[in-house]
Amino acid sequence: MTVAATEKLIAPHGGTLVDRTGERPDDLDSLEHVALTSRELSDLDMIASGALSPLQGFMGAADYERVVEEMHLVSGLPWALPVCLAVEDAPSGDRVALADVAGTDVAVLEVEGVFPYDKEREAELCFRTTDDAHPGVARLYAQKPLYLAGRVTVFERPAQTFPELARDPAETRRIFAERAWKRVVGFQTRNPIHRAHEYLTKVALETVDGLLVHPLVGETKADDVPVDVRVECYRTLLDGYYPEERVLLSAFPAAMRYAGPREAIWHAICRKNYGCSHFIVGRDHAGVGDYYGSYDAQLIFDEFAAHELDVEPMFFEHTFWCNVCGSMASTKSCPHGAEARVHLSGTMVREMLGTGDVPPVEFTRPEVARVLIDAYR
Amino acid sequence: MTVAATEKLIAPHGGTLVDRTGERPDDLDSLEHVALTSRELSDLDMIASGALSPLQGFMGAADYERVVEEMHLVSGLPWALPVCLAVEDAPSGDRVALADVAGTDVAVLEVEGVFPYDKEREAELCFRTTDDAHPGVARLYAQKPLYLAGRVTVFERPAQTFPELARDPAETRRIFAERAWKRVVGFQTRNPIHRAHEYLTKVALETVDGLLVHPLVGETKADDVPVDVRVECYRTLLDGYYPEERVLLSAFPAAMRYAGPREAIWHAICRKNYGCSHFIVGRDHAGVGDYYGSYDAQLIFDEFAAHELDVEPMFFEHTFWCNVCGSMASTKSCPHGAEARVHLSGTMVREMLGTGDVPPVEFTRPEVARVLIDAYR
Repeated sequence: MTVAATEKLIAPHGGTLVDRTGERPDDLDSLEHVALTSRELSDLDMIASGALSPLQGFMGAADYERVVEEMHLVSGLPWALPVCLAVEDAPSGDRVALADVAGTDVAVLEVEGVFPYDKEREAELCFRTTDDAHPGVARLYAQKPLYLAGRVTVFERPAQTFPELARDPAETRRIFAERAWKRVVGFQTRNPIHRAHEYLTKVALETVDGLLVHPLVGETKADDVPVDVRVECYRTLLDGYYPEERVLLSAFPAAMRYAGPREAIWHAICRKNYGCSHFIVGRDHAGVGDYYGSYDAQLIFDEFAAHELDVEPMFFEHTFWCNVCGSMASTKSCPHGAEARVHLSGTMVREMLGTGDVPPVEFTRPEVARVLIDAYR
Repeated sequence: MTVAATEKLIAPHGGTLVDRTGERPDDLDSLEHVALTSRELSDLDMIASGALSPLQGFMGAADYERVVEEMHLVSGLPWALPVCLAVEDAPSGDRVALADVAGTDVAVLEVEGVFPYDKEREAELCFRTTDDAHPGVARLYAQKPLYLAGRVTVFERPAQTFPELARDPAETRRIFAERAWKRVVGFQTRNPIHRAHEYLTKVALETVDGLLVHPLVGETKADDVPVDVRVECYRTLLDGYYPEERVLLSAFPAAMRYAGPREAIWHAICRKNYGCSHFIVGRDHAGVGDYYGSYDAQLIFDEFAAHELDVEPMFFEHTFWCNVCGSMASTKSCPHGAEARVHLSGTMVREMLGTGDVPPVEFTRPEVARVLIDAYR
């Protein structure tokens, strides 16, 4: 589309922002109780806030089938990953209480159905692998055997580690509108932002109105950089190097699935609900190990028709500082050889930070390096 | 649209690339002859090549009226500027021969109508001024009093100053397809490319497949940098700083109208015909003097509905080298003050080049500076 002609913020996926928050029912104690895993709780809270619009609850069998097989809901809307609640047995009543990992009731679900599912098939189709060394597949294999479907009403939202960064889609949309941003690019990350990713976000920002830095703060792998360290890195970088009126830092409450390509689509749709018209998809988006090709998470967007997703992906290649260009660049914009490019492996960077050495300014901002050095000590 | 989902090159404006080249008619000498101005000859050749698709000739009264009043053709397609042929009198026959400025016949026109037009009204609506100090308005005021409408067949294409850069839309489209480019951004320029504009083109290139550097080589103001010097600058810059496989340098044969906002739309539509899915619109696009606000040529895109133009504009703000960022940046991506930014006025740059001083590398590539210094001597 002529994105410039967008007169207002992009519409939520399916047209309407879902709100599944509500009152605690009086008969809660009389209901059967189902305990949710941390992934299910993340999904539940995103359903409540509208981050997973148009979903109003955990998926039924028909939606599940079409999503797994064809990446669409029964309604025809694109959808890339199951959002399901796994249970041991079918509940007896027509409503159940949903409890968090501490056993506290947080929501009620109107039972629409219970159905069995094939874990290996879901793994193969959604994760492109049945290897249980894959963290998303391992979590899937550890699930209970049935999926319980139904609309939810959440009366107890989870406590937020960073309450000042916890903004529901309605809130980010309100802020974008206040700032008169129409075209907003979302950036998903679960790592500190070094120069390479700073470059992606700024290149993207140059052609839109605003940037949503939207780090995932839900469950990640144990060897990812801890969320509090990352948040301090983001704040430090944004304070020093981004215009305050052009960028918003906010938390994305999803749990990582590490589903690579399908998760890139899912991430893009979620950010559309937060009000993003554009979404950055770099190399190895939402990937893990060697399960996906570097550009698989970009290529999968070709499987949707034009206009279907509405949110526009912005694809990037490998980026780096080039000494001949005298600038950040990518394999697309720089003709010079590897010898001109500043390259540091992840291992090298971790070693430097561990010994208190500040990596070159062409690799990371010194202020960010200092946050990481303090954390690594 | 989900531009990533584009499976092939963008369609020409109106769906089909026009080809109005053809055979010299046998009865040419028996026809009345009309001499064209250089602006009209540029338009004629662009009609022939399909660069002005869907136009098949010079506009009739109905199209002229809707374009001037509403920026659309009668068919409903967007169109921003009149493409008309001014004559002294209505011709007597139903066909006329069109001659170039040297008096050589180059085309035949099938007369569809002749109509008077109001020069001040056209100036006010298309140029937003009736001031004859405006070069486009001055040229309009100097035109003959009637517009002659009709489909053209061009049998003699003009000689090209840079034949190796003269590529019709069919040819650029063929090259894009060969290189498997689907998303191509076009960059219009009538100036040498310094770091600021290099940055725009590279930022744009990062998110698409290829870059068409498309300098205007038709008629410009006498005080613009001569086209041969500019072409040497472009070649020098591209050789040193762009990956050959990601960029195409080609000539845009239009005459400048200096119509600012409306010309930006017109430029974007023309580049769509050349196969560009995206088009860069910076500050003061196609402007002159103080007739237009810096962002008027961006704001005008809002006057079209989403999807209407199809070609996607990429808007940029003022760009510069920032010493604190240690990179090129814009007022959108850099929070630092003017004191951190390398700023040289046009006058300063001309003075430096005139005295043989190479401007700072943050302002222009030294190789480009040397081309300009040699030219200024």
